[in-house]
Amino acid sequence: MSNKDMPTRSGPPIVDRMREAPPSADRRQFLRSSIAVAGAAVATGASIGGANAQKLEIPPSNKEPGRILEPKVYGLPSKYEAHVKRNRTDVFVNRQNLSDWSMTPLQHQHGIITPNGLIFERHHAGIPDIDPAKHVVALHGMVKQPLKFTMDDLLRYPATSKFHFIECSGNGLTDWKKNASKTVQQTHGLLSCAQWTGVPASYLLEAAGVDVSKGKWVLCEGADGSAHARSIPIEKMMSEAMIVYAMNGEMLRPENGYPVRLFIPGWEGNVSIKWLRRMKVGDQPWHLRSETARYTDPMPNGKWRQFSFAMECKSVITRPSGGMKMQGKGHYEIEGFAWSGNGKITAVDITLDGGKTWREARLEDPILDKCLTRFRYSWDWDGGPAKIASRAVDSTGYVQPTVADIEKSRAIVGFVQHHNAIFPWSIEPDGEVKNAIA
Amino acid sequence: MSNKDMPTRSGPPIVDRMREAPPSADRRQFLRSSIAVAGAAVATGASIGGANAQKLEIPPSNKEPGRILEPKVYGLPSKYEAHVKRNRTDVFVNRQNLSDWSMTPLQHQHGIITPNGLIFERHHAGIPDIDPAKHVVALHGMVKQPLKFTMDDLLRYPATSKFHFIECSGNGLTDWKKNASKTVQQTHGLLSCAQWTGVPASYLLEAAGVDVSKGKWVLCEGADGSAHARSIPIEKMMSEAMIVYAMNGEMLRPENGYPVRLFIPGWEGNVSIKWLRRMKVGDQPWHLRSETARYTDPMPNGKWRQFSFAMECKSVITRPSGGMKMQGKGHYEIEGFAWSGNGKITAVDITLDGGKTWREARLEDPILDKCLTRFRYSWDWDGGPAKIASRAVDSTGYVQPTVADIEKSRAIVGFVQHHNAIFPWSIEPDGEVKNAIA
Repeated sequence: MSNKDMPTRSGPPIVDRMREAPPSADRRQFLRSSIAVAGAAVATGASIGGANAQKLEIPPSNKEPGRILEPKVYGLPSKYEAHVKRNRTDVFVNRQNLSDWSMTPLQHQHGIITPNGLIFERHHAGIPDIDPAKHVVALHGMVKQPLKFTMDDLLRYPATSKFHFIECSGNGLTDWKKNASKTVQQTHGLLSCAQWTGVPASYLLEAAGVDVSKGKWVLCEGADGSAHARSIPIEKMMSEAMIVYAMNGEMLRPENGYPVRLFIPGWEGNVSIKWLRRMKVGDQPWHLRSETARYTDPMPNGKWRQFSFAMECKSVITRPSGGMKMQGKGHYEIEGFAWSGNGKITAVDITLDGGKTWREARLEDPILDKCLTRFRYSWDWDGGPAKIASRAVDSTGYVQPTVADIEKSRAIVGFVQHHNAIFPWSIEPDGEVKNAIA
Repeated sequence: MSNKDMPTRSGPPIVDRMREAPPSADRRQFLRSSIAVAGAAVATGASIGGANAQKLEIPPSNKEPGRILEPKVYGLPSKYEAHVKRNRTDVFVNRQNLSDWSMTPLQHQHGIITPNGLIFERHHAGIPDIDPAKHVVALHGMVKQPLKFTMDDLLRYPATSKFHFIECSGNGLTDWKKNASKTVQQTHGLLSCAQWTGVPASYLLEAAGVDVSKGKWVLCEGADGSAHARSIPIEKMMSEAMIVYAMNGEMLRPENGYPVRLFIPGWEGNVSIKWLRRMKVGDQPWHLRSETARYTDPMPNGKWRQFSFAMECKSVITRPSGGMKMQGKGHYEIEGFAWSGNGKITAVDITLDGGKTWREARLEDPILDKCLTRFRYSWDWDGGPAKIASRAVDSTGYVQPTVADIEKSRAIVGFVQHHNAIFPWSIEPDGEVKNAIA
């Protein structure tokens, strides 16, 4: 969707600009608001002095030795956090396990980093078992000197590390016009964020002597059972693509492409070919099934648009979100993520009344290119029904659209990819938070 | 150590300023250097075309389905990465397991994030098992209104997420004047880096009505078997201290303070009290054993200096580092970390000749306050003996000292804390990389 089709922020008024306020002013507002609910002892903690004086209890853990550490270990989460797992969708039952996916529990994520144990998965033929000592990446086709690279070769190249989100093009596809999913893990969990480390793809292409005036596309293929492959424009390969072997400080996990994958910042996840086996330079795209029958967008005129690579500007509120229950009126922090495959996030607006009015959320540093950005908004909930949503703006000026906005330029029929619409949650009279997309 | 005691960078000449060069120039230099060694096919990959044309082999993983994903899972590293674990030191044998530590394998870390499974540990009485539903943090002493906070209370406060390193004050204490340790995991592995999420401590102190003109120190105590505690100046509590419940996107691990800890950016790790149970405001420090017999620095006059909180500017080369072996002459990327408890890293110099000459390394974005910064330097190794080291400079102008520099103002006797000296590795004639601190 081009920017000219897009709505602007000029419609509904921005009633409250908090983003520019200094943190201390915002904090004071929160503390004032906390004091207002102090009778209910909701958000500031309960009194333990004065008229309500209590003895400080010494907990049992202070009275006995703890568990000793093991000599060599890779650590794991607390047993009390066992509910925080990635999960298959419950909505879209998949009877053929080899092509499957699991989703990140975004409602439990703090900060912008997704821990490696919770990064979403998408496989077309299961997870291959690849010995890095035997793995080779080939670079051939329209190059002066075809080359092959072992993992040792790749690890000796100058590396770079970048923070970027990764999102599946199918994220949200069950929730365009019906409330199919309950939680934000189900509606948006094909989304994760990590620091990716590897070699700029341009270093390898230059080493092979690519001529970018002739070799315009690169076929990238995985070493998995489906030999998943995509055609990538040479400009993106030379500017931003990375040959990635590590994420969040350690080597890739098997399900995320171990020992090496392509990574293309900001583009739909399926082009970032996992278990990368070869790159072949050619003068036109290959028109594979993965770029004709899949990952294409139906248009109102009955045709389908090919090569919708960039994941456009999007945001979602993760707290409160579907499946949570509000614990009585008072102060709540509305929190969520905003991201854009085309640049940095410049603003996020929040609505509490289903889009009638908007107010600006605070954005948290660091705000990085093609990376999750966390927004927060301090809300005094009056205990009544509400319909909350976020709307992100990126550095190109693009404003996150509604489903109705998107439908002006695309046909929303069947399982449609590239759903970046504003996503509302309703607060029901009993405090339950529900999917309100339709 | 005050800045006036410190060496400046004006001594040995900086012979090579690469940091300001655009990445493309640097890349070209690397590619030229690669071409120079192309006969040995070392760093650019091996030819698979032309006179040496080979058929592209299809790997077995392309010919069979992979492992199917499990429905609910917390993911783990590849079996081929089982050697990447945190570990007890082999140098300093500890016969009393309740007070113990494990170290981060920095030689295997990519980027600046330490994965949660590899964050170093230091416990004084083992790891307590704390049910977050029962845990309470108390705030009392010289405050208008003593308060207690459940985990639910803390999670409703406005949160903040920050990238910061954490380092044990004892990091490197066995390697001042002898080469006691072999690997960088042993010499520097009481160092990790994460994005920490929690509530600014000032919010809680303000809610309790602290008067900072009277309450000058805060006793912070853990819920572990040792009831580990420290006295923290109120200024730091009000400016930077965080009440942290999450790291790298998920709730803290048990060994890192689950469910809640104090975190003080840039200061020695032992003040960031894990399993935080209470904060008591007073008008002077408590002079606990942990601040009289421990975590103090011997001075040349026989006295001991108390309250050396900040971890001063430091750096280390992680690759190549002790225990590795060079694979023949040619191109190598020298890589490592620089950090400072007093600000941002502004420069890192590299020596290849034991400190006679220095050249400037490239620093990788984002360069964040009190956070690991990765530096890189492209080196054409001639195959001969070398002595390599890094020297960091921070935003206060402080230059990382040598052991001899530090000895001008402190006594280095016994197990001395706060070792931030320049740390050299030798490249032996056979290519082995060894600890060269003495």
